[in-house]
Amino acid sequence: MNYSQIAWLIFYWLFFSVNVYSQEKDEEVLQRIFNEVLVNGECYDNLEYLTQQIGGRLSGSPQAAAAVNWSRQVMEDYGFDKVFLQEVMVPHWVRGKKEVGKIVNSEKLGSVDVNICALGNAVGTGDKGAVGNVVEVHSFQELADLGEENIKGKIVLFNRPLDPTKIQTFEAYGGAVNQRGSGASEAAKYGAIGVVVRSMTTALDNIPHTGALRYALNIPKIPAVAISTNDAELLSSLLKDDKNLKFYFETHCEMKEDELSYNVIGEITGTEKPNEFIVVGGHLDSWDLGEGAHDDGTGCVQSIEVLRTLKSLGIKPRHSIRAVMFMNEENGLRGGRKYAELAKENKEIHLAALESDSGGFTPKGFGINADEKVIKKIASWKPLFSPFKIYDIEKGEGGADISPLKAQGVSLIGFKPDSQRYFDYHHTEIDTFDKVNKRELELGAASMTALIYLIDKYGL
Amino acid sequence: MNYSQIAWLIFYWLFFSVNVYSQEKDEEVLQRIFNEVLVNGECYDNLEYLTQQIGGRLSGSPQAAAAVNWSRQVMEDYGFDKVFLQEVMVPHWVRGKKEVGKIVNSEKLGSVDVNICALGNAVGTGDKGAVGNVVEVHSFQELADLGEENIKGKIVLFNRPLDPTKIQTFEAYGGAVNQRGSGASEAAKYGAIGVVVRSMTTALDNIPHTGALRYALNIPKIPAVAISTNDAELLSSLLKDDKNLKFYFETHCEMKEDELSYNVIGEITGTEKPNEFIVVGGHLDSWDLGEGAHDDGTGCVQSIEVLRTLKSLGIKPRHSIRAVMFMNEENGLRGGRKYAELAKENKEIHLAALESDSGGFTPKGFGINADEKVIKKIASWKPLFSPFKIYDIEKGEGGADISPLKAQGVSLIGFKPDSQRYFDYHHTEIDTFDKVNKRELELGAASMTALIYLIDKYGL
Repeated sequence: MNYSQIAWLIFYWLFFSVNVYSQEKDEEVLQRIFNEVLVNGECYDNLEYLTQQIGGRLSGSPQAAAAVNWSRQVMEDYGFDKVFLQEVMVPHWVRGKKEVGKIVNSEKLGSVDVNICALGNAVGTGDKGAVGNVVEVHSFQELADLGEENIKGKIVLFNRPLDPTKIQTFEAYGGAVNQRGSGASEAAKYGAIGVVVRSMTTALDNIPHTGALRYALNIPKIPAVAISTNDAELLSSLLKDDKNLKFYFETHCEMKEDELSYNVIGEITGTEKPNEFIVVGGHLDSWDLGEGAHDDGTGCVQSIEVLRTLKSLGIKPRHSIRAVMFMNEENGLRGGRKYAELAKENKEIHLAALESDSGGFTPKGFGINADEKVIKKIASWKPLFSPFKIYDIEKGEGGADISPLKAQGVSLIGFKPDSQRYFDYHHTEIDTFDKVNKRELELGAASMTALIYLIDKYGL
Repeated sequence: MNYSQIAWLIFYWLFFSVNVYSQEKDEEVLQRIFNEVLVNGECYDNLEYLTQQIGGRLSGSPQAAAAVNWSRQVMEDYGFDKVFLQEVMVPHWVRGKKEVGKIVNSEKLGSVDVNICALGNAVGTGDKGAVGNVVEVHSFQELADLGEENIKGKIVLFNRPLDPTKIQTFEAYGGAVNQRGSGASEAAKYGAIGVVVRSMTTALDNIPHTGALRYALNIPKIPAVAISTNDAELLSSLLKDDKNLKFYFETHCEMKEDELSYNVIGEITGTEKPNEFIVVGGHLDSWDLGEGAHDDGTGCVQSIEVLRTLKSLGIKPRHSIRAVMFMNEENGLRGGRKYAELAKENKEIHLAALESDSGGFTPKGFGINADEKVIKKIASWKPLFSPFKIYDIEKGEGGADISPLKAQGVSLIGFKPDSQRYFDYHHTEIDTFDKVNKRELELGAASMTALIYLIDKYGL
C-alpha cells in the first residue's frame, strides 16, 4: 500500500466517523438504538445484580458502599473514557429492629397488630414505645383547627388518600406526600407525641411504605410511622365508634453520624466539546426495605445502558456524555447537591441533564423543565419517537438529583414511563427485581439514549 | 300540585333524561366515566373471583361451566335489562396428566429434564411416549428443503424466536405463531413423528406456553408440545455438537366428544334503536394452565364493567349495548361463530363490536377494522382520549371472537393496551390474578366505556 492509498483510507475513515451524523437519517439511528438495546441490552442483567446480589442500599449502609464499587466496576469494564467517584458526606439513618404497631383497647377488636414501618430520618420510640389516643386528620388545616387542646399528648393519624382519579399517579402522590414529609413537625407543633401516616400508594393492601420526613427546626422531633392503607382504613373505621381506642407503636430507628460516600460517574468524552456535558442519571441509594428495583435501580442501569449503547453503535458524541449514579436522593439529596457544586467549581458547562427516577416501566415520554425555546425544540423531535409509541414530550419536571443544576441554567429533563404500578412498590419490601419487565426497562433505556443522541447532535 | 305543574315536571324529566347527550360536553362525560371506574370500579373484584375462585376454564371443562353461571349471575345482579345464554357446542380437549420432556443420550449432559406442555387440540403419545432424533428448523421452507429423507421418523424442533425488535409484541407473535398452529401437520407431511415448538414468548425463561394447533386434513396427526425458551436454546446448543441426541416426550392429552356450552350476554336495551346493537366483549374460556387472567378474564370483566358504568352513571344509550362473554376462543372459536350466526338469523343490526383480548394493561388505544370513513370518524375522537394518555386510535385488528361479524359489515374494533408483558404470561401457568394491576385494568375498562359511549351517541 502506497502513501496515496493510505491517505485515502485515512480520509475515508475520518469522513465516515466524524460525519456519522450527517450520513445517517435520525430515523435510522433511532431504530438502530432501539434494536441494539432490545437485542443486546445488558441493563436487565445489571439490574439483577444490583437488586438481588446487593439489594436495598440506604445511604451510609454497607450495601450502598457495595453499589458504589459495583457500578464503578461495571462502567470500567465497559471501557468508558473516564470513570470516577465524587466524595460526598451522607446522612446515615438506620431502621434497627422490626417495628411493632398495634391498635389497643378497641371496643370491637381488643388489640390488633397492624403493618407499619418507621419513616426515614425519624427518631425512634425505643423499647418503651409510644402509646396514646388517636386523632384522625386529612389536612394540616384540620390539624390547626383542632389545635393544641385536642392534639396534645395524642397520636395523629394522617389519613388523606392518594386521589385515584388522577391519571398520572405522581400527581396523586404530590397531592398527599406532605403528610409524610411534614406531618410529624406539623403535629408536634400542637403537642402530638407521634404520627401515623397513611402509606403513599394508590393500592389498598397490607404493605407499609417508608420514605423521608423532614423535621422542622425548633420543633420537638416526635416518632413517625407509615401504616398500610388497609390498616389505615381499619383504624379509621374503629375510631368512628370508639374515640378512646389507643395506638401503640415501637420503632428502633436512629440517625447516626454522617458517612463518606460517593457519586459514581462514567463518561464518554466529547469529540468536539469535551468540556460541555450532557448528564443522564439515576440515584444509586434506595430505601432499606426491598431491593430498590424501580426506585431507582432501573434509573441507574438505564443510564449506564445509554453510554454502553452509544459506544457499542460506534456513535462518537460531540459533547461529553456522563452517566451519573447519584448518592442519597432518598433522605438528603447530598449527591445531587455535590454534583452541581463541583460542576460549578470545575467550570463545567452542562447543556442538559436527564434523570430516570420514575420506575422502569414502558416509556410514555419526557417532562422538560427549561426555557420555552428548549421545550419547543425537544418537542419538535416528537415524530422521531412516535414509531416507538412515545408521545408525551412536554413541559414537566426533571428529577430531584438533577434539580440543583437548575441554578446553573441547565435544561432538566425527566424520563416519564407509565406510572400506574409505580406506587404499588415505591419504598416497600416488594420493590424487587421480579417487578421489572425486561422489555419495558429496555424500551426506557433506548428512548433515553435516543434523546441524548438528539440533544448531542442538535444542541439545545 | 296541579296538572300544569305535573306537566312541567314531566317535561323537565323528559328533557333532561332524553337529552342527556346534548346537555353535557363529551369531555365531561368521559371524565365522569373514568372517575366512576377509578373510584367505584368493580372489575378488579370480579376478576379476582373469576380467576381465583374459578380458575383456568378450557371449553368443555367444569370450570368453563362455572364461569358461565358466574358471569350470568354477576350481570343479573347488576340489573342489566336482559341477561341470556346462547347455546353452542364446543370441542372438549383435555390435557391429562403432566407431560414429561427429556433430552436423552446427550454426549454432554446425558439425560436432562426439560419444561414442556402439550399443545392444545394435540393427540397424546400415551404412556409409551415418543422418542427420536431431532431436526431443528426455523421455517416451513427449511423443512421443505430438508425433505422426507432428513425428517422421516424424527422429531422436529421449530425454533424461530419472536423478533425482539418489534415494538408491538403482537407483531412479533404474529411472525412466529405459524410454527405452533401448523408446525405439526407441516412436519408430518415429511414423516416426522412429533414436534417440539419453541414457546411463543419474548422472554427467556423456563415456562412452556400452550396454545392451539390445527391438524390439516388427510395428514397424520402427530403429537406436539411447546418447550420453554431456555430449554429450546439448550436443546439447540446441544444439537450443534451432537446430532445423535434424542428427545423423549410423553403427553396424555386427548380430544373428547363436543360438549354443550354457552355464550353469556348482558344487555342494556337502547332507548331509540333497541334492535341496533353495539357489542363489547371478551372470551370466557381460557387455557387450563394458570387462571386465564390476562387471557382473557380481563376482557370479560372489563366488558361487564362497561355496562355497569353506563348504568351507574344513568347514561341511557340510544342503541342496545351488549356485553358478550364468548365461549371457546382458544381452541375453536365456536362461540364467536355462533354469535354471528344468531345475529344474522335474528336480523339484529350490529353497528360495531369492540373486543378486549390483548390483556388488562394500561390502555394505548384502539385498532379499527372497518371502512376508511369509520376509521376517520373514530380517529376524530382522539382529542377526547388524550387527557387519559390514549393516543393510538387507528386502522388495525378487531379480535378473534368478533371477526365472524365482519361478513355482516360490522365495524370491528380491538382494544389495544400496552403489549410488553402480555407474552410473558400468555397461555401459561403464570397467567394469574396477581399479574393484573387494578388501575391498569380500570383505565382499560374506562377507555372502552368512553368509546362505546361515543359510538352510541354519534353512530358510525
